Amino acid sequence: MFDPADTGLNTLLGKIKEIVESNEIRRLPKIPKGTRDFGKEQMAIREHAFSIITNVFKRHGAVALDTPVFELRETLMGKYGEDSKLIYDLADQGGELCSLRYDLTVPFARYLAMNNINSLKRYQIAKVYRRDNPSKGRYREFYQCDLDIAGQYKVMEPDFEVINVLTDLLDELNIGDYEIKLNHRKLLDGMLEICGVSSDKFRTVCSSIDKLDKQSFEQVKKELVEEKGLGIETADKIGQLVKKRGPPLEILSDLKGKDSPFLGNNGSLLALNELEILFKALEKSKCLKKIVFDLSLARGLDYYTGVIFEAVFKGAAQVGSIAAGGRYDNLVGMFSGKQVPAVGVSLGIERVFTILEQLEKENKVIRATETQVLVAILGEDLSLAAELVRELWDAKIKADFSLNKRIRNHIDRAVESGIPLVVFIGESELISGTFKLKNIESHQEDEIRREHFTEEIKKRLNMV
Amino acid sequence: MFDPADTGLNTLLGKIKEIVESNEIRRLPKIPKGTRDFGKEQMAIREHAFSIITNVFKRHGAVALDTPVFELRETLMGKYGEDSKLIYDLADQGGELCSLRYDLTVPFARYLAMNNINSLKRYQIAKVYRRDNPSKGRYREFYQCDLDIAGQYKVMEPDFEVINVLTDLLDELNIGDYEIKLNHRKLLDGMLEICGVSSDKFRTVCSSIDKLDKQSFEQVKKELVEEKGLGIETADKIGQLVKKRGPPLEILSDLKGKDSPFLGNNGSLLALNELEILFKALEKSKCLKKIVFDLSLARGLDYYTGVIFEAVFKGAAQVGSIAAGGRYDNLVGMFSGKQVPAVGVSLGIERVFTILEQLEKENKVIRATETQVLVAILGEDLSLAAELVRELWDAKIKADFSLNKRIRNHIDRAVESGIPLVVFIGESELISGTFKLKNIESHQEDEIRREHFTEEIKKRLNMV
Repeated sequence: MFDPADTGLNTLLGKIKEIVESNEIRRLPKIPKGTRDFGKEQMAIREHAFSIITNVFKRHGAVALDTPVFELRETLMGKYGEDSKLIYDLADQGGELCSLRYDLTVPFARYLAMNNINSLKRYQIAKVYRRDNPSKGRYREFYQCDLDIAGQYKVMEPDFEVINVLTDLLDELNIGDYEIKLNHRKLLDGMLEICGVSSDKFRTVCSSIDKLDKQSFEQVKKELVEEKGLGIETADKIGQLVKKRGPPLEILSDLKGKDSPFLGNNGSLLALNELEILFKALEKSKCLKKIVFDLSLARGLDYYTGVIFEAVFKGAAQVGSIAAGGRYDNLVGMFSGKQVPAVGVSLGIERVFTILEQLEKENKVIRATETQVLVAILGEDLSLAAELVRELWDAKIKADFSLNKRIRNHIDRAVESGIPLVVFIGESELISGTFKLKNIESHQEDEIRREHFTEEIKKRLNMV
Repeated sequence: MFDPADTGLNTLLGKIKEIVESNEIRRLPKIPKGTRDFGKEQMAIREHAFSIITNVFKRHGAVALDTPVFELRETLMGKYGEDSKLIYDLADQGGELCSLRYDLTVPFARYLAMNNINSLKRYQIAKVYRRDNPSKGRYREFYQCDLDIAGQYKVMEPDFEVINVLTDLLDELNIGDYEIKLNHRKLLDGMLEICGVSSDKFRTVCSSIDKLDKQSFEQVKKELVEEKGLGIETADKIGQLVKKRGPPLEILSDLKGKDSPFLGNNGSLLALNELEILFKALEKSKCLKKIVFDLSLARGLDYYTGVIFEAVFKGAAQVGSIAAGGRYDNLVGMFSGKQVPAVGVSLGIERVFTILEQLEKENKVIRATETQVLVAILGEDLSLAAELVRELWDAKIKADFSLNKRIRNHIDRAVESGIPLVVFIGESELISGTFKLKNIESHQEDEIRREHFTEEIKKRLNMV
């Protein structure tokens, strides 16, 4: 006999329900690992951030550039050192071999070389692609906001401006206190020379030193000795020097002091002289207080040749770098054979979004649309809506319309979307030629004549 | 003996020169076939066009959405009919199989299904990818500007708005006279039914009919009979009906006339009633004059289910469609099993760029930057530049600086970039505390005191 209270049957039904539901869930589409959609609220935040960033870039006289999302594979090869394994390749479907861009710097250098351009200050805000582990809140598709200055200039002229761009960006985005760690590749190389490292090991030793922000010196020393083959004494010498870190002018005068080992090294001397010019200019432009001269900053990428820097948040909550950059005088020449010196900064915007999203959530509701008026037709007459809403659109008023018999539905919709004004038009309003206008926030109601419809609405929107 | 006038030697030298030069050229980097860079002038035009388009989209109350540039391959499969072969795949580097997006409509439908959204008016301006033949000025990476309205509405409510969006876009971009060909998939299917085509052949016959804008009916008839297996009589019947083309209300009253074969077909009747509501509303909103009711319009894509349309330029010079769209009520359901009706329009912006570029070239020089002041340091003192230009940046003035002893170089640079004001600071100016300010256009020269530097410049830029 069928007994709905039977435990066995209930268990069975429960299991069936589970399977059906899991099928339902499984049927929903997904997006690729490490990617994401930007819904309406995220887009509103993103547009806000981009407009701040674009304003800074334009204020500094940069022109916009856009390059294809994929490049010939040969363009990207040999530019990123160990990180090349993270490059996304397109499938070979016949024709050229292509890969998604990994950053915006290499495409910029390719663009300069291809078009024989010797001088350009450009910005680019675009997505880049890295097959990285997306587990730690990192994405595989993410935005970079870059400004680069290529060309022959007086010493430190563009380096100075690029760092000003960076402080302007972080100040105007207003996302928390930060400092900019700064070093010079030639000083770093000189330091390694002084410590007795052979020049063919400079880059690989640098990538070990670069880990000092996450690992202790003991760990890095182990790597230097066991993996990179340095002597213990050499590693300890390096350990002494990379400890130097502090206010730029203090560290600089220390490194230029009369017993400094750097005085006997030509590359280091050149670097120290450049840094002196840079620091003095940054002091005049009130950016120097943000700079920390840090001899342990090495930066992973192969292509840097001069000043290098990295902006990090102060305080425990914010981890990792938010922007970075430096000078790369040989990259363009790798494409064309003709050197064009260049320096640039790259802001990783994903962390900025996260912070802005948190701030916005705490502060206020974000409007995803800017609609100013809802034309609420109390019925189904599309032609009536057409006539009225067209008048508003022609007057460049952001207007939406809706066909619905129930006043409540129209008001709910306006409240939900933050639309400030609603005009109601039903049969009696059509006969009388007088429409009811409701201000959602003040609850004030008003009557306007059909013949002054657009004009009256413009008045209330302060558009007259 | 060596004779430089020797013809044989000259020929040889010429050949060597040729080879060396061709090697030089070969060494320059390239970008993938069918892609392009947007340099500073193109970017200025593009930003101008995007700002017009975004304004229209926002005026119509749409929210922004962004989706990843690649989707899971399964998301794109089975949506594009024969065109699927043009999809770019990512290489299989372990992990999921992905492909570059082919349009913005399928990702939009995937987004709605994935997030269980039943109603959304969204716009998206983004690049899409097609492995098409790039020979005819077409690109493999190109922008689409889409607005779609998903959700339950009164009959023709969103269809009406989408067509208004399209006329607003084309009117405000102001790129030439156009017309919008419009038809209805259910009318088309009804027509084929009336002509005796079996329903399993509707889609493939449609894609033949769609060629009527480029081929004669005789050519299309041949394809229908020989490739698609229709009878000659059936093909001729189709030929008679697809000829109908003209002002919407005239054609409509013809098709609804008492001897019309469409009256006996349910799908056609439904379509004709919808079109009547749509045309009347479009007449009220003054868009109907742009519409041509064209029974030969079929549109290639599989997913359309209702109103379909395509905007084309009038006149010989402009060929091909510039925008297109239609209703697709079943696409979201293909992902989630739950139907969400939707209608949208997609503007192909590449042709718009080409036209705008031509117009701009004829009319005026485009400024790629907005720089307002050049701080011209007559020497090499970076710190001096730093102090002055920082003041301007802090006042949100778009300022650039330059270190150069020669006045001429500064002026050349300002003229080239269209910078309206130049301030000169040399040694004597520093001593006197009075700087020379030059207005490039009027050639007027002025003196300003150091202590009123920023203030005086703001005055001249009308920023006070």
